[in-house]
Amino acid sequence: MDLVNHQLLLAARPVGLPQDSDFELVEQPVVEPGEGEVLVKVLYLSLDPAMRGWMREGRSYVPPVQIGEVMRAFDGGVVVASNDEGIAVGDHVVGVFGTQEYAVVGARAVTKVDTGLAPLPTFLGTLGMPGLTAYFGLLEISHPQEGQTVVVSGAAGAVGAVVGQIAKLKGARAVGIAGGPEKCDYIVDELGFDAAIDYKAGDVARGLAEHCPNGIDVYFDNVGGEILDAALARLAREARVVICGAISQYNATEGIRGPSNYMSLLVNHASMTGFVFSDYASGMADAARQLHEWYAAGKLKSREDVAQGGLEAFVPTLLRLFSGEHLGKLALQVAPQ
Amino acid sequence: MDLVNHQLLLAARPVGLPQDSDFELVEQPVVEPGEGEVLVKVLYLSLDPAMRGWMREGRSYVPPVQIGEVMRAFDGGVVVASNDEGIAVGDHVVGVFGTQEYAVVGARAVTKVDTGLAPLPTFLGTLGMPGLTAYFGLLEISHPQEGQTVVVSGAAGAVGAVVGQIAKLKGARAVGIAGGPEKCDYIVDELGFDAAIDYKAGDVARGLAEHCPNGIDVYFDNVGGEILDAALARLAREARVVICGAISQYNATEGIRGPSNYMSLLVNHASMTGFVFSDYASGMADAARQLHEWYAAGKLKSREDVAQGGLEAFVPTLLRLFSGEHLGKLALQVAPQ
Repeated sequence: MDLVNHQLLLAARPVGLPQDSDFELVEQPVVEPGEGEVLVKVLYLSLDPAMRGWMREGRSYVPPVQIGEVMRAFDGGVVVASNDEGIAVGDHVVGVFGTQEYAVVGARAVTKVDTGLAPLPTFLGTLGMPGLTAYFGLLEISHPQEGQTVVVSGAAGAVGAVVGQIAKLKGARAVGIAGGPEKCDYIVDELGFDAAIDYKAGDVARGLAEHCPNGIDVYFDNVGGEILDAALARLAREARVVICGAISQYNATEGIRGPSNYMSLLVNHASMTGFVFSDYASGMADAARQLHEWYAAGKLKSREDVAQGGLEAFVPTLLRLFSGEHLGKLALQVAPQ
Repeated sequence: MDLVNHQLLLAARPVGLPQDSDFELVEQPVVEPGEGEVLVKVLYLSLDPAMRGWMREGRSYVPPVQIGEVMRAFDGGVVVASNDEGIAVGDHVVGVFGTQEYAVVGARAVTKVDTGLAPLPTFLGTLGMPGLTAYFGLLEISHPQEGQTVVVSGAAGAVGAVVGQIAKLKGARAVGIAGGPEKCDYIVDELGFDAAIDYKAGDVARGLAEHCPNGIDVYFDNVGGEILDAALARLAREARVVICGAISQYNATEGIRGPSNYMSLLVNHASMTGFVFSDYASGMADAARQLHEWYAAGKLKSREDVAQGGLEAFVPTLLRLFSGEHLGKLALQVAPQ
């Protein structure tokens, strides 16, 4: 085997927005998979807000990526060599394979996916980690009831889009906060949200007042900052706030902005709960089955925004994630399918 | 009846710390109680952090005190006239009678107390609203388990002292955060906390690291601000943060400081829940019975700091509440017992 693997290593811990100089592109020979291992050729790399946290030093829910290590990433790829009887060459798989073109991983670290059901990038979004994140955060933490109002920020993103759609499937009202008319039209017209609030166009607080006349029962937060504060100010009694992310704060150089309106929790007997999808490992298989079923039945719609340019386009694509210049799941094509 | 009632009215909404000029002392004749009403002579007035919120305009869990109205307060007093068969002249009672010397109230608005069990001011603290607040916040929201670490701020105050003692009664470890050596000695030596952290003496984060080697399972917050952030940074997995108050922020003129470390909720699958004691109206009688039982058995200790000077001492006494120059429940004697 004389394949060449290009890898993107974390070269420095970014200060503020990541830059090209924070990464180093290196070349390595591809090694043979050992017993029980497979060799995956990466086709798509997932761009996730969590990546910014992984670049940071210090305690979190997973260890940080070390300087000189391949940057961590979720990927979708195809098996090109296998020493495991459960996985065949040609199988499409997803897993944490990193920002590289080839990965040798243990068979248990790959999940086979059915590209007859959906294109591979969908398994990095609606049918992958973001979809599961939406599922667990909404259903296991916030328990939306029929007729209740669920508000989600980052509503056109990979997680937010699924949150709103599941809320609707459960009989709740879904109100999405997104940036720009295209995203707002998308979540209402294509995904079936009841209303959209364009945070770039105006006052989020006014939008929430208009679309949540009885207050917010569930607020699913992906963004933090001012929008979290606006939602807190509008909570209904017994509201559940789900903290899934804070993308507006991930590149802050002067510390994270805490939610000044958190005393609304006290006034409304409300709660704010954080999680990451891996907290729900034991429920993963059932949740994935449910997402697949909804998707196959046309009840869960999905869009992916697939950037081109291979590993060299990693940083500019990641920056689009933070500037919000994407619609749906943002992925990067690493090699032709 | 030609008794004279002195009343303290809210004359202006305080900006920052309340001042004497925000209140007006007026004189009114005492009116006769109507059918089903009683006339209470106020003996003690309770100073509660919540008062600062009641002075503020705008939506909260109770309507604000209006300008020109008697300032709202919990009081303890003695019945001097009764038109209700369940309540006799001479009965000691507590209730929301306001900052005044006499109050005519409906019989259902008074709670009779047994001054044979404890002095009247104790029914404004450990055996009153603060004690119930501690009880519900700790037991109904945070469910401390045996061996878990419960941290409480404002630990020498009326609520915090009860939180730590109930935590101990439930087999948990209690760590209190308080200001100054006297309070720290008090909660450890007299109340039986496992450890105290003097926030005026040093680094709260270091104290938490020392006394919570396995992290904080329950953090009961009465203070907000930097101490809340230090506690968030030290949460254990599945931690429960109870938001009971934020006394460090109540007089802020530049907005409340939100907890920058709230993403610790995400990392630790933790929750932050707010409440006020009146959320648990249906459990009040049982909770009060339990507190009385513990108190009678010597399992719940209590101290009150009773200021003198009558209504004219209201503002300076209230300021002691915010500066922390008191130990235990702060009350003001309005008339001799």
